[in-house]
Amino acid sequence: MELLKRRIQQDGTVKGNDVLKVDSFLNHQMDIALFEEIGKEFLRRFEGCGVNKILTIEASGIGIACITAQFFRCPVVFAKKSQTKNIAGDLYTTKVESFTHGRVYDVIVSQKFLGRSDKVLIIDDFLANGAALEGLIDLVHQSGAQLAGAGIVIEKAFQPGGDRLRAKGVRVESLARVKSMCEETGVEFLD
Amino acid sequence: MELLKRRIQQDGTVKGNDVLKVDSFLNHQMDIALFEEIGKEFLRRFEGCGVNKILTIEASGIGIACITAQFFRCPVVFAKKSQTKNIAGDLYTTKVESFTHGRVYDVIVSQKFLGRSDKVLIIDDFLANGAALEGLIDLVHQSGAQLAGAGIVIEKAFQPGGDRLRAKGVRVESLARVKSMCEETGVEFLD
Repeated sequence: MELLKRRIQQDGTVKGNDVLKVDSFLNHQMDIALFEEIGKEFLRRFEGCGVNKILTIEASGIGIACITAQFFRCPVVFAKKSQTKNIAGDLYTTKVESFTHGRVYDVIVSQKFLGRSDKVLIIDDFLANGAALEGLIDLVHQSGAQLAGAGIVIEKAFQPGGDRLRAKGVRVESLARVKSMCEETGVEFLD
Repeated sequence: MELLKRRIQQDGTVKGNDVLKVDSFLNHQMDIALFEEIGKEFLRRFEGCGVNKILTIEASGIGIACITAQFFRCPVVFAKKSQTKNIAGDLYTTKVESFTHGRVYDVIVSQKFLGRSDKVLIIDDFLANGAALEGLIDLVHQSGAQLAGAGIVIEKAFQPGGDRLRAKGVRVESLARVKSMCEETGVEFLD
């Protein structure tokens, strides 16, 4: 998605060789006009797949998921990061390791909101090691729902998550795939 | 807002005398068509106030804020709940006590995204004791921005937050104001 790639090159900031800060438009301040274009592009890629529910994870996936859901005319469910050990019986639960925060979260979704009749599109802002996305896929599988695929805004294609999940047969559509980045020369994309 | 009140009475669940579960349409599964009507109503109430930025707090305010921002044609900034003590110098920071989770959070916003040229509308899903809203107002004041007011989806009007903030001169617009609730008879609204 050219508009997005240009925006990343213009307003993104690289720290070291693997931190890409896009907090001015994607995950702290959110440019809603850009999110509308992102939502349209996800619809273009997943139209006709029968998606009736969008699943994301708090917090930075929620805004993109909600704007995207307007184009699919379907509800959004967001998985919650829980550190509590008191998991009630009516939840799907999985564990996700956060490399950024150096800890493992329980991630939960109420069983009321995901089930056999659902065809799910997962939406998230970033894909790197793939831990969060794998956790969300696990929740979809537990529920018996079908997985249409995953729509990702920025994939760090030099990290292994995207390729590993594609090799498992998951349809992963990333709107900007970063091949490499460094502080001096900025971001280079695949394709 | 009648549509919202009917939805709360139809799909909300009361636990004890002060827990109102609306997770089927507001803060776990999110009904985006309803969010559009909520956004239109916030625009009707705050139109002409010069709002150029919406501020909310993770996680459940983000979806409502993003859909509402489409009607105001402005960006959203979401404040982050941080438990880290390493607060860098370029952040506005305040403390918010969560009664639900029984702890105090540092809540932060980057100084890059809130400043003197901004006229801010705060959006959140719930107002009860008012701790989160007071924290967000403190961040707005620190930044030198003007506060247009706060748009709240559900106010527990039997708790003190809304009245205390109105008494301080804050314009608080709540779309459904709960007068009382109990498990047997459900929810009763003010007005």
